[in-house]
Amino acid sequence: MKASSKNRYWLGFDLGGTKMMATVFDKDFNIVAYRRKKTKDGKGSKGVLPRIVETIEEALQAGHLDHKHLSAIGIGSPGWLDLDRGVVLLAPNLGLRNVPLKKELTKDFGCPVVVANDVDAGTYGEYRFGAGQGVRCLLGVFPGTGIGGGMVYEGKLFRGRIGSCMEIGHIHMQPKGRLCGCGRRGCLETVASRLAIASEAGAAAYRGEAPHLLELAGTDVAAIRSGALASAIKAGDHVIEEIVCHSAKDLGIAIGSVVNLLAPDMVVLGGGLVEAMPALYVKEVRAAIKKQALRPYTKLLKVVTAKLGDDAVAMGAAALAAEHVRNES
Amino acid sequence: MKASSKNRYWLGFDLGGTKMMATVFDKDFNIVAYRRKKTKDGKGSKGVLPRIVETIEEALQAGHLDHKHLSAIGIGSPGWLDLDRGVVLLAPNLGLRNVPLKKELTKDFGCPVVVANDVDAGTYGEYRFGAGQGVRCLLGVFPGTGIGGGMVYEGKLFRGRIGSCMEIGHIHMQPKGRLCGCGRRGCLETVASRLAIASEAGAAAYRGEAPHLLELAGTDVAAIRSGALASAIKAGDHVIEEIVCHSAKDLGIAIGSVVNLLAPDMVVLGGGLVEAMPALYVKEVRAAIKKQALRPYTKLLKVVTAKLGDDAVAMGAAALAAEHVRNES
Repeated sequence: MKASSKNRYWLGFDLGGTKMMATVFDKDFNIVAYRRKKTKDGKGSKGVLPRIVETIEEALQAGHLDHKHLSAIGIGSPGWLDLDRGVVLLAPNLGLRNVPLKKELTKDFGCPVVVANDVDAGTYGEYRFGAGQGVRCLLGVFPGTGIGGGMVYEGKLFRGRIGSCMEIGHIHMQPKGRLCGCGRRGCLETVASRLAIASEAGAAAYRGEAPHLLELAGTDVAAIRSGALASAIKAGDHVIEEIVCHSAKDLGIAIGSVVNLLAPDMVVLGGGLVEAMPALYVKEVRAAIKKQALRPYTKLLKVVTAKLGDDAVAMGAAALAAEHVRNES
Repeated sequence: MKASSKNRYWLGFDLGGTKMMATVFDKDFNIVAYRRKKTKDGKGSKGVLPRIVETIEEALQAGHLDHKHLSAIGIGSPGWLDLDRGVVLLAPNLGLRNVPLKKELTKDFGCPVVVANDVDAGTYGEYRFGAGQGVRCLLGVFPGTGIGGGMVYEGKLFRGRIGSCMEIGHIHMQPKGRLCGCGRRGCLETVASRLAIASEAGAAAYRGEAPHLLELAGTDVAAIRSGALASAIKAGDHVIEEIVCHSAKDLGIAIGSVVNLLAPDMVVLGGGLVEAMPALYVKEVRAAIKKQALRPYTKLLKVVTAKLGDDAVAMGAAALAAEHVRNES
């Protein structure tokens, strides 16, 4: 088969803390094939890069494709990145340090490779294909174990000099707050992430105030996932509802401050908490944004839920790769 | 004299709450002439527009110039603006509502008119001619009676859909804080503006803890200006130093949060408090930013003082007007 614009394929890669996914898209960004693997195989960080290559190879095979069909690879990764050089400088959850992703994958697959922050890629995915198509200024906020943020401004991802930015999880919220993973106290992540909620909910379950959660997930913060929280609320654990709503309100206050800074046209909310409790959670966040943000901004603002779910990062990364190829040619 | 590129002049206008200033610049942005007036003449808001026209006319006359020499006018205004239409939607301090500045001045002077937010114009001035020349991402923060912010990103002012943004003064800081001018509680302006400091300092003076300030400015918050605060500290009012440093720290924490969002390459600090206490105040702000912002961002960040002083808004507005003309032609 002769390579032409008719058989161009993009590969989007979502490098997550627990799983990785390679998705092959045709030129119109329809999904052709995909392949998932666990990120960690027990062999430590050395195994991660070979597993990325393996997952891409298998996704290509699943689509009956070869290296030569690939126009570009886009990869969404967590951690601190050097975007231009395509290096993962540090990703503690993956055990990666100074991994030259772009260089290695370019060598293996012989096509352009773009490395992006995973939340940026997800936000860009929603901008191109999801809830925020064509929006002038789109703020993506993804509360999960941490709280990620990304922004597309006038068609392009907003970025730092070397790496990504929009670390909304590390907005200061409480002068004498809890200890954050970043070493500071009172960051938004300590009051409104899934982990913050889980730790508060776990204590309530331990005290006997959330019998359904106790039965569903116990008191281990690792086990108290968004789905368990949603189920406990449905089953009647009022204290869990109170905890979740209070954290949603804090998230809304923080987003309201960001709206006062950036005046986005749309905030798209995604991630585990949003997916598990779209009505309850988003209603609280929306109300708090409206209360905190200045009137001229809220008048023009839409607050919506993400549409692409688990595909957002891979789709966004593939689209960023396609955009890169378009700009280079 | 025949109009040519050799005799093009730009006019920059700073529309302030207490004074207005028109400055004529030659094509290389050297100051040719300027003229100041008080903004209010006791005749209410109806007098403001004629006085703007009058001030521009007088500045032209002072430079021995006529309307025909003017290539464009740039005007920096406070309040809520419609940037594209050049309308001051609402500026409570000036008593203006729905004033079509662009239309009126275009009619009077027969040249293009650009209306910008005053803090944006000041930030753009520092970007073009001052402390932040050519910086990829420049955040301007101007603590005064309120706290204004502006950002130049990749050569252009960052803006909202209709108006300006970067309302850093309305970042949420204290869950049960003081009442803000915007109607909310605990905004940054309630802890770190000149007015917030003055109200705290005034109470301290009333209690007899700041004898020098009491002598210099009394206990009236309107009279406790940045200069008086600086003099009182110099004279030995330790409690005033404590109040100022504490508020500078709060400003730094808020800027640190913004750094975590936007990863600017430089923060330029200007306004009354900075000018009155450049060493003491900026040192505290800088230290707090460093503590609050994430390490990969602070490593690349410079925190500096503004260079243009009172000329920043007029210079920036004139440069924005020139940029507009360049893009249109």
